[in-house]
Order: sequence, then C-alpha cells, then structure tokens
Amino acid sequence: MLNSEQFSQNPNLYIFLPLYYTLWEDFNLSKSDIEVMNRLVDSQSWLKDEESDLLKEYLNPNQKPSAQELKNWRNHIQFIKPQNLKNLTTLGLELVKTHQNGHDFKITESDKEAFEIAEKELGLIFNEAAYRFQDGHSTITSKQESKSSFDPKLMQEILDGSKMELIQKVKDTLSKPEFDYHQHENISDQREQVLEWCKILAKEGYGSWAFPRDYGGRGDMEGYFTIMETLSYHDLSLVIKFGVQFGLWGMSVYFLGTEKHHQKYLKDIGSLELPGCFAMTETNHGSNVRGLETTATYNHQDKTFTIHTPHEKARKEYIGNAALHGQKATVFAKLIIDGEDYGVNTFVVPLRNKEGELHPGVEIEDCGHKMGLNGVDNGLIAFNKVIIPKEDMLDKFASVDEDGNFKSTISSDNKRFFTMLGTLVGGRIGIPRSGLSAAKSGLTIAIRYANQRKQFGPEGGGEVPILNYRMHQRRLMPLLAKSYALHFALKYLTNRFLTKSEEEGQEIEALAAGMKAYGTWFTTTALQECREACGGKGYLSENRIDDLKNDTDVYTTFEGDNTVLMQLVAKSRLTEFKKEMGDMNVTTIFNYLTKQAKTTFSEKNPIIVRSTDEKHLLDFEFHLNAFKYRERAIVASAGQRIKRLVDEGMDSFDAVNVAQHHLVNVGQSYIERKVLEQFQLAVETTQNEACKNSLKQLCSLYALHTIEQNKGWYLEQGYLEGVKTKAIRKMVNQLCWETRQDAKGLTDAFGIPDNLLSAPIAFLD
Amino acid sequence: MLNSEQFSQNPNLYIFLPLYYTLWEDFNLSKSDIEVMNRLVDSQSWLKDEESDLLKEYLNPNQKPSAQELKNWRNHIQFIKPQNLKNLTTLGLELVKTHQNGHDFKITESDKEAFEIAEKELGLIFNEAAYRFQDGHSTITSKQESKSSFDPKLMQEILDGSKMELIQKVKDTLSKPEFDYHQHENISDQREQVLEWCKILAKEGYGSWAFPRDYGGRGDMEGYFTIMETLSYHDLSLVIKFGVQFGLWGMSVYFLGTEKHHQKYLKDIGSLELPGCFAMTETNHGSNVRGLETTATYNHQDKTFTIHTPHEKARKEYIGNAALHGQKATVFAKLIIDGEDYGVNTFVVPLRNKEGELHPGVEIEDCGHKMGLNGVDNGLIAFNKVIIPKEDMLDKFASVDEDGNFKSTISSDNKRFFTMLGTLVGGRIGIPRSGLSAAKSGLTIAIRYANQRKQFGPEGGGEVPILNYRMHQRRLMPLLAKSYALHFALKYLTNRFLTKSEEEGQEIEALAAGMKAYGTWFTTTALQECREACGGKGYLSENRIDDLKNDTDVYTTFEGDNTVLMQLVAKSRLTEFKKEMGDMNVTTIFNYLTKQAKTTFSEKNPIIVRSTDEKHLLDFEFHLNAFKYRERAIVASAGQRIKRLVDEGMDSFDAVNVAQHHLVNVGQSYIERKVLEQFQLAVETTQNEACKNSLKQLCSLYALHTIEQNKGWYLEQGYLEGVKTKAIRKMVNQLCWETRQDAKGLTDAFGIPDNLLSAPIAFLD
Repeated sequence: MLNSEQFSQNPNLYIFLPLYYTLWEDFNLSKSDIEVMNRLVDSQSWLKDEESDLLKEYLNPNQKPSAQELKNWRNHIQFIKPQNLKNLTTLGLELVKTHQNGHDFKITESDKEAFEIAEKELGLIFNEAAYRFQDGHSTITSKQESKSSFDPKLMQEILDGSKMELIQKVKDTLSKPEFDYHQHENISDQREQVLEWCKILAKEGYGSWAFPRDYGGRGDMEGYFTIMETLSYHDLSLVIKFGVQFGLWGMSVYFLGTEKHHQKYLKDIGSLELPGCFAMTETNHGSNVRGLETTATYNHQDKTFTIHTPHEKARKEYIGNAALHGQKATVFAKLIIDGEDYGVNTFVVPLRNKEGELHPGVEIEDCGHKMGLNGVDNGLIAFNKVIIPKEDMLDKFASVDEDGNFKSTISSDNKRFFTMLGTLVGGRIGIPRSGLSAAKSGLTIAIRYANQRKQFGPEGGGEVPILNYRMHQRRLMPLLAKSYALHFALKYLTNRFLTKSEEEGQEIEALAAGMKAYGTWFTTTALQECREACGGKGYLSENRIDDLKNDTDVYTTFEGDNTVLMQLVAKSRLTEFKKEMGDMNVTTIFNYLTKQAKTTFSEKNPIIVRSTDEKHLLDFEFHLNAFKYRERAIVASAGQRIKRLVDEGMDSFDAVNVAQHHLVNVGQSYIERKVLEQFQLAVETTQNEACKNSLKQLCSLYALHTIEQNKGWYLEQGYLEGVKTKAIRKMVNQLCWETRQDAKGLTDAFGIPDNLLSAPIAFLD
Repeated sequence: MLNSEQFSQNPNLYIFLPLYYTLWEDFNLSKSDIEVMNRLVDSQSWLKDEESDLLKEYLNPNQKPSAQELKNWRNHIQFIKPQNLKNLTTLGLELVKTHQNGHDFKITESDKEAFEIAEKELGLIFNEAAYRFQDGHSTITSKQESKSSFDPKLMQEILDGSKMELIQKVKDTLSKPEFDYHQHENISDQREQVLEWCKILAKEGYGSWAFPRDYGGRGDMEGYFTIMETLSYHDLSLVIKFGVQFGLWGMSVYFLGTEKHHQKYLKDIGSLELPGCFAMTETNHGSNVRGLETTATYNHQDKTFTIHTPHEKARKEYIGNAALHGQKATVFAKLIIDGEDYGVNTFVVPLRNKEGELHPGVEIEDCGHKMGLNGVDNGLIAFNKVIIPKEDMLDKFASVDEDGNFKSTISSDNKRFFTMLGTLVGGRIGIPRSGLSAAKSGLTIAIRYANQRKQFGPEGGGEVPILNYRMHQRRLMPLLAKSYALHFALKYLTNRFLTKSEEEGQEIEALAAGMKAYGTWFTTTALQECREACGGKGYLSENRIDDLKNDTDVYTTFEGDNTVLMQLVAKSRLTEFKKEMGDMNVTTIFNYLTKQAKTTFSEKNPIIVRSTDEKHLLDFEFHLNAFKYRERAIVASAGQRIKRLVDEGMDSFDAVNVAQHHLVNVGQSYIERKVLEQFQLAVETTQNEACKNSLKQLCSLYALHTIEQNKGWYLEQGYLEGVKTKAIRKMVNQLCWETRQDAKGLTDAFGIPDNLLSAPIAFLD
C-alpha cells in the first residue's frame, strides 16, 4: 500500500494508514468489519475511483499485507513521532500533514465524522490503538509510587509502644548467626535445630520471663507475649516449641499448681533443664475436652494416683515436645476416688528421663510429618497404669486431703474445669499475636515485591509495578489495614487479660476466644492471598510464604477450633442478652435495642441510609454505629430465633444447631465491633499528625471494607440502601489507591529486620 | 439440704432441688440471681418460715454445698429417672411426686407460675438444664445419618461417562504396589520416584495417548485429559511431571511443529526416551509473555539460530523437568532477522545429553524447595549463545525461508503469538480438571471423617457426628455441590475444545481461561476448608490434605494468574459487548439487555423480587435467569463505566485499571452462568430418577449458594429483596441439611480407590 502509486500521488490517503494497520494487526477481519470499512471508503467524497479500489483491495483476505509490510506501516507511522493520539483518525490526519509538508488536510467535517463513526463501529472507542505508536506513553497508573506520608520509625514506635526495648532485644538475639535460616535435610535435623534455638533463648532468660523473680523470671507476662510475637518474625516451629515449653507446660504448672510445684519445677522449666508437655487433647476429645477419658485413680493405701489410658482413642494426641524431648507432662485426667468421678483435674506425670528413656508404662508414638511446624516433635502418649505421688496433683483448684477426700473451693466439676481452662486463656492471646506477626511478614514480602515487580503497561508505555493495579491493591490493602486493626485489638486484649478482675473473667475468656478465631482466620486468609499475589515466586520456599502459611495453618484449629470458639463467644453474648431479655417479645427487644444503641435506630432514617456524602462515609461514628447495629441486631435475632424454635417444641440442642451459622455471625460481629473500637481509639490517641492521618485512613479502610463484606446483610436490614453500598465500594477502592502510596512505609513500620524477612523477592532493589 | 430436717418433713421442698442444683453447678451466683431466688422463696405461700430460711441460707456463698453434696443432689434427681423435662419446675414437681408416694403436689397456679418466671429471669428459658438428668437424650441432630438416596455406582457411571473404561484402567495401574505412597527422605528421592512412576505410565502407553497412531499414540486427546484427571487422585507431582513431559513439551512440538518435528521427536517424547521442557516464562515476564526477552537471532551464513538470554532476569524460570531430567526444551524467544524483531516464536533447544551433561552454553539453576510439587524438578535456564539448526524452529505458524526471509500466514506478530498460545489452551483444561480431582479427594476425606468423628452432643445424650452440625454442613455441602457443578462444566469445556471450529477459537480460549481460574480457586478454597474441617487430623500429612493443598496451590497462578485470566475473560466479553453497542448510551444498553435477556427484566417485578415460595426458589429457571441477569448487567455497567471515564478524558489504560475489580466480576459471572447451564443440562439429561433427584438438589444448592454469595449485588440492583434473600439463606441451610444424608454416597460416586485415598481418617470404621 505504502509503495503504491496512489499513496505517492495523494498523501491524503495516509489518513487511512493507522486504521488499516490496526485492522490487520489486531482484528480477525469479520464480514461486518469489512462492510464498515467499505462504507467508510465509499463515504469519502475526495477519493478517486482507483484510490477506492486500492483501499478496498487491502481489505481482501487474499491480499493481506505480509508480516514485513505490516512492520513497514508501523515504522512509517512511528517515524513521525505522533503527538495527537485522541484516536486513529486524528493520528491519520497528523500523518497526512507530515506528508503534505505541514499543511493540514482540508477534509470536510462530514468526511471526518465518517471516520470517527467507523472507529466506533469497529469497537475502537478507546485510544489504546493509537497509543502504541508513541513511545513513553505515561498514565496515572504508571506514575503511582510509594511515598510514605509519615516517618515509618515514628509509626513503629506507636506499634511497639512500651515494649520497644524488649522487641529490639529479641530481634538482636534472632539476628545472631546461630539463628540463620537454612533448609533442613530432614525432620530430625529440623527438630534438633529448633531445640538448640530454644536453648539459646532460655539461656538469654526469655523462657522464664513471665515467671516470678523467685524462680529466675522477670514476672513480666506482657513481656512473654511480646517475646512470642517477636519470635514469630523468625521460625514458627521455634515459636511453638517455645510456647509449648514455657507457655503451656510452664504456665500450667504455674497457674494450676501451688507453691510446692513452683519450687520444684519452675526454675528448671524456664531454663529448659526440664522439657515438658501440656497433655490435654485426646484422639477422641479435642474440642469437647470435658469428655476426656484418661483417668487418675486415687490409691488410698499409698497415697498415689494411677494415670491410665483406657483405650487407644483416649491417648493424648498432637502433644508438642512429646515425641522426643519432653520429660514430664501436665496431664488432664478424670480424677476417680472410690469409684466416684470428680471431673477433669491435672497432674504432673513423668514421660522419660534425662537420657531419653521412657518411663515405665509410658508409650509414645510420633505424629510424623505435618503440614507445617515440623520442627516441633508432636506425639501421642498412652499411659499404662503409671503411678505418681499424691503431691504431683496440681492442686490450685482441687486436691485430695490426707484422708483421701476430695477438696475444692469450687463445688461444681464443670465450673472448676472451666476455671482451670480460664487460667490458660493466655494461649488464646499468644497464638493470634504470633499469627499476626506471620501475616505481617507475608504482607511485607508481598507488598515489597508488588512495589518492584512490573508487568504489563499502557500501549506504548513501560511496564507498571503490579501494586499500581487496582485489583492488586484490592487484594492487599484491606489486609494491611486489618493487620493494623488486629495489632491494636490484640494489644487491648492482652491488657484486659493482664489487669482483669475476677468478675471480668468470663468476658475476657470470650473475648480471647473470639480474637483468637478472628485473628488466626485473618492470618490464613492473608498468607493465602500473599502467596497468590506473588505468583510463582510466592510458591518458592526461599520466599518464606510457604512456611509462614503452612506453619500457621493449624492456628485456626488449635487452642480451640475457630468455629467452635466463635460459638462459644456467641453463647456468652446470648447469655448476656437472655439475662437482659428474660421473656422475649418484640417490644422488649425493640426497647433493648433502642436503649443499647440509641443512635443506630435514628440513623435508619431515609436520608442517612442513602447518604453517599464523602464526609459521612469517612466518619468514624458512622462506622462504629454500623458495627454496633449489626452486632446487636444479630444477637437479638439469634436469640429470638432459638426461642421461637424451642417454643414451637423443638429440642433446644436442635434449635441451637439450626441457628449455628447465625451464631458464628454473632461472635464475629461482636469481635469486629471490639476491634474497630480499639483501632479508632488508637487513631484518636496518636499524637504525631502524619501517623495519625495515615492510621485514620487505614481505620476507615478496615471499617468500610468490613461493612462492604457484610453489605448483603445491611441491605437486607434496610440499614443501608444500594446507592450507599455502591458509594462504599467506590470509597474502598479509593482508600486502597491512596493506601498504596503509604503501603511500603506501613510495612517498614512493622520493623521486621531484613535478615528475618529474608525472602529475596522483598529485596529486588 | 437433702439431709435437713425440713426436707424429710416436707417433701414438697424437693420442687426446689433441680433449680438449686443448676444454680450451684452452672451459675456464678450474681446479686440479681440471688434476688430472683429470694423473691421466689418469698412468693411461695406454702412455705413455713424455717423452710424459707433454709432455702435462703443455701443461697449464701458462705454456705455453698461441697463438691460431694452437689454430686449427691444430682444423683438424687437422676435416681428417679425423670420423664417430664419441660423445664426445671416440672422436673421438681416430678421429684416431689416420687417423695409423696405418687401423689401430685397441690401447688397453686400462681405459685407454680412464680417458679417458671424465676427460671426465665435466671435465663433458663431452654430445657438443656433439665436434660442432663436424663440418660440417652436423643435429638433430631443426633439422629441424622448417611443414607444415600441413590446407587453410588450408577452415579459414578454418570460422572465417568464414556471414559469409564480408561478411568478404571488408570486406577488399576495406580493401584499396583509400585505406586504405593511413602514419605520421601528428601527431594532427590522424591524426584527420582516421580520420574520412575512417569516411566511406568509411559510404558503403559499413557504418555503418547493424545499423539497420532503413527507416532505410537492413540490419537485420543480426550483420553489424555481423562488420564491427567485420574492420575490426580494419586500424587500431584506425578501429574505435573506427566503434564510437563507429555502435555507441555509433547503438545508444543505437536501443535507448534510440523511433520518433520513430529517424526523426529514425538515417539521418543511419548515413551519418555526424550524428557523435555516447555520454556516460556521468564523471571521478568510471567503473565505478560508478549514481553519475553530471550532472543533467537537468525544467522544467514550457516542457517542457524543463536538462542540467547540477554540478562539474568530474562532467564527461563520455574521450568519443569529443567533442573534434572530435561534433554531438550521448546523455547519461546523473539526471532530477530537482520536486526528486525519478528515477535515471539518457538524453537527446540538442547539442554543436556542422555548422560545428563549440560549442552555447551546452557546454564541451569535449581528452583529449590517449593511449597509443593517437590517431585517436579523446576529450574532456571540461561542460554549463552546456544546455536541450533534452522530446522529446529517449530514452524507451524512461521518460518524462515531458504533466503532468510520471515514467512508466516499470520502477518501480525501479536495475532501470530496469540494463535500459538491458543493451540496450547489444553493446559488450561488439564489443570482445573486435575485440581478438581484433588478437591474431590479432599472432600471425600473430610466428609467421611465428619461422618464418623463425634464431638459434643445434647445434655444427657451421646456425642454426635460433626457432619450433623449445621455449621459443618455449611462448610462442606456447598463445596460438594460445586465440585459436581465443575465436573460437568469441565467436561463441557473439554468437548467444546475438542470439537471447536476456527471461529470458536477465541470463545473457547476465554472459556478455558475463565474455567481454569474459577476451577482452581475452588480447589484452593475447598482444600483449605477441608483442612480446617478435619482439625488436627487434617494437619497430619498422613491424611493427605497437606499435599493435596500445597501441591495444587500453584494452580491458581500457573497457566496464567487467575486474576489476570479473569480480566482476559472480561475483555473478551467486553469486546463482544462493545461490538454490539458501538456508541453506548442508556437507551441502547436497555435495548441490548431486554433483547438478550427478555425474561430477566420482566422478573424484576414487585411480586417476584419478593417471592419466597419454595417451588419458585427451587426453580431452575429462576436460578438461571438470576445468573444471566447478573452476567449481563455487570458487563454492561463495566462497559459504560470505562466509556464514561474515557469520555471524561481519562487515559483508557487508567480507565480499565479503575474498573479492574469490576472486570474480574464480569469474568466470574460469565463463568458462573456457563457452569450452571451445564449442571442444569446434566440434571435434565440424567435418566435414573434417584440420581436425577439427588443431582437436582445439588444443582439447586450450587445455584442458591452462589446467589447468596452475591446477594449484596442482587439487593443493590433491586433484583431481590431482603425477604427473598433471607428465604434463600434458609433454603441453602435446608439443602445442606438434606444433602448431608447423601454426602457419603456422593463422594463414593467419585470412585476414588481406597488405596489412593489412603488417609486413615477416611477409614475410621
């Protein structure tokens, strides 16, 4: 075409060239495409017949340009370095101008319009087709980049708070060469490595941190959680091995035992002289631990207990430290005196001696390879009539007196059992805090990678960091916001736990159960998303998301299965609710709701449910009211529903089962409200303006994204109307876009040392 | 209390015993609880003063019963084997009757009412508190069990269809002792094992199944997919190694090469004499493969190509078979002739000889340990000016002629490249089919376990299989339904692919891209849920969910990142839409929608959007219309939105980015409609009534659960109202409950041999 006589005689024909190039380069020319083009050619009054013929000829599939010819066309267009890329018609006109020595093509308006109509009919309504002829085409998307609006060091101070020094100390320890990561040859090596690491930590005093000073500790329980959390930037097997030894084994002796046990054991536990286990779960009883079957039968004659496993499915299972290293264990067993069952109590039982030889009557089976945490030696334990002295009953809450009578300040077996479990609630704080650290590592890796990794870009422009893509922001920014939300909420939970009065016990237990479930589900979700967001690189173990994900995967089911825990939270909420409601009917419920959430009902007015005003959408009060409304409405409707079913004659167990899915939402909505409250409080108490603004944005993102996830429910209730949920979706997109600029700074503020992060993809620059 | 003078004198006092027991056993007696009880005592006209005093005394925390006393109360109540367990008051009356030698207690109505009010005020509105005194308390929940409504063998025949025989043959092969699972010592062992397995499969002819008979094959491409799918009940590393060798390497030679390549290579590929690789992805170009940087420069003088890696980030990465076994590779590289770039073409390039020595100029790095698929030796390949003869260019679509000129029937580099990729679309069929098999294994394991595993139960009753819990059903039943939906949809995709005409090419490519994304996301979600649903047992590698999950995790990002693929689908849908729309405005869009989906708009009438009629909710037409409406409304609004942004002056690249999240939904909703259509068709064509009914139920569950997941959107649109979405939620619960009974049969119908399933928790009975 370019070399034809016609083109050299009439340079105006160049107006067609960009269109023809695009047709042959991009289209599978259909019959209708050809018709459009034929109409266009026919419409142009200025064309001579032979010119029309030439143009139509070049639409004939049998006359198509060769690969070389197509390249020549393109080079020809690009050669003029076109500026006006509105569409292919304007580009064509520019081309004509060059060939006419700078004179404009005097085309009639209607002829020009025919070109633009043709472009539209061909579906070329955007300007992408034109951009490819320009070099260095830049766009808003291309230009977005990281520019932290605050000083990450200051943000880190806010996150670390009063424990900054201890956090740094732990990081320094972990940065010693002994803690370098390496691929393990096999499980045995890995387990030995993790034990060695634990010994170093014990030597540095971390193991006994929570124990009283008299037993070599610092009496700093908050510090213990901080250590767990900071260790979690390193190897998670180490964290769990550490937690089993000093948390589960140590704390069970500390909280369930008395002075004599503390004297006898605590120091050696803290120094790892005495590795031990926490043996509660049995094969047949995991969630329902009240049903444990191991027995501890009191022998009057010699004042001993016989610890016994009645059958294979009653073995203690998944017990950390059991397969290899544990020498003693806190064993949960039903106390039997004279044939009477006094419920589950706890006993210190020997497993093996210092040389590793099993105690007579103890049988151990290795749990073998696991999805993760293979540095922890989990095992099954069977006791075949193992005798222990009377004083090895952990007797803080119950004991057997000199005459062989059962004694307890808590008469009810159930209440005693749950009181004992209540003292161990710390595990449900340590786990989500550990999981959050793992999620922070994953997010830091994925966000740093996405900030550097480029892929695709505008036609004629360079490739763009994948974090500039809205979808990628949608995947990662809400998770980043939620990681901050959880950070403050878990800090709050820890404080409540450490300062709790007796009356607050049940509230804190429910809160811990719910936070554990909410937090660990977050960890699993976040790390799964990070894996996928890093593509093939995320699949390579060197980039650590593999271990982070697999090691923490069990967090959702240990220390209590999450769905069971959420029901536990729901039941505690329902109990509160039932107490207030007594005999439920519509009026009292309405009164209850209006009393408890005065503002929410007034909000359900026609103006507010439709409001899309930006200021309103970003208003903390709107967010919190929406969360509170949901929480209260769900608990009320769950209560009503169960009540109605029971009134209709359904067994209450069945009624609760019918509402089970509903109950999980009761727990979830309660926890979400608590989390948002703490995040908002953290924002409000932040002094530094820049940090405060960034946190405020994150907090809004957390709130609106959560509302968006529940928008079906809000719409069903009439609490929000479609116009508003759409505006919320748009606002979430906008917040993701804005947060993207702070994203790297926000992960820097986690303060995870590079050597612990380790993943090569986090350090592409 | 029991031994008091008062009780022996006035047996009517026994009416209080169940209430007192419950208070001391369950309550942390609060001030208000005590007030309630005091009021109750005061209200009873028949009580003597000293009796009232006794009762009040027993509310004093300083006078609380001992553990032993509490047990005595309980034993006392249980001893009478109470029948009337409506509440604690009726139980108390029954107790009195026993002590009064069968005479009823003549209590006044108002006194009795005071008891019942007190129970309510204490929050004891359900009968759980009473049930604990009865043995063998059974409930609807306790009684639910597996009872297949159809013959699983017949259902299996429906699923296996015409490939039943081949499926059985592959299962038989996999059931040979050579294929027994065992824990691998290390990666090297695992890789050797997988290679050995592949050799056995090759020997049995599976490797060349898809190749023409002339080259040792069966010419049965459908069979190839069936083999991949069936192998996926076994080790996934084996599947991928198999797929790399016979699918990627073999099919690339088959589809991109010509006769001479087939003759030279196919037979040896099929027999695994010639292990090879498919080397497309580079470190810097994964999703955006058009940007590959490896070059193949034509040398006129000796008619050869020089294959070269320009820099480290342009190395071929994640290439299966590269680290150890591959001898040759199909390499994607930009063809350069005389400095002109002719786009990406493919070449057969040597990597190492039969002895494993690397070819000169080839450098390989092992990708190392991965999250999963460690039986596959992925590697990085760098080419340092490796020379290959001209005839090793795979020249189906382009070639260099004797004079060194580029020749192609497809002039456009882009179009040629995408045509080449189009021939390889089979990978996007094999992967989701493999993933679906893995999900089926996981679901079979999780459902069988939940069917046997018991935990918790009603007060006074035995523990209940966890699959009887509604929440557990909610977690697993929709996934089971979706696995069936995908089964039929993937079968349909395979048929469309195998029988496609040239015009259908783009449609099938988009369909395959979308099905790959939809299917593999399902696999990841399903296996994550199965892991959690099996608790600690799910975390043990012996139960296989570990490997199933980790091996398939990469499926969401290989053969194309899922979010990128969904956008590809969306763009194909938008192109269709744009073509029809031309210049978009509200009227034409309305016309378009009404034309395309006549029924949907008429459905948006006030009666139907609120209909909660069961028959309507289970109506296939309602389901499909809802899916279609969503699909069309989303594509129209995405198109409008992008158009509006561009009209407002936004760069089209930015506009598409703004709508990216929206576009993923365009892809998703299209795929969902296609999947539902195929599932409904499968139901309608099923002959056996019992199977048909069960499939119909599953299909409704899939449809309604999908609508429920998108209910926020439907409510926003006014297509459904809250009353209807609530009814849908209820119906989903109901369908889960009903499906639970068929669940075991539905997993039996997958026909996964026990030895391949292997997980001990799948065989508790």
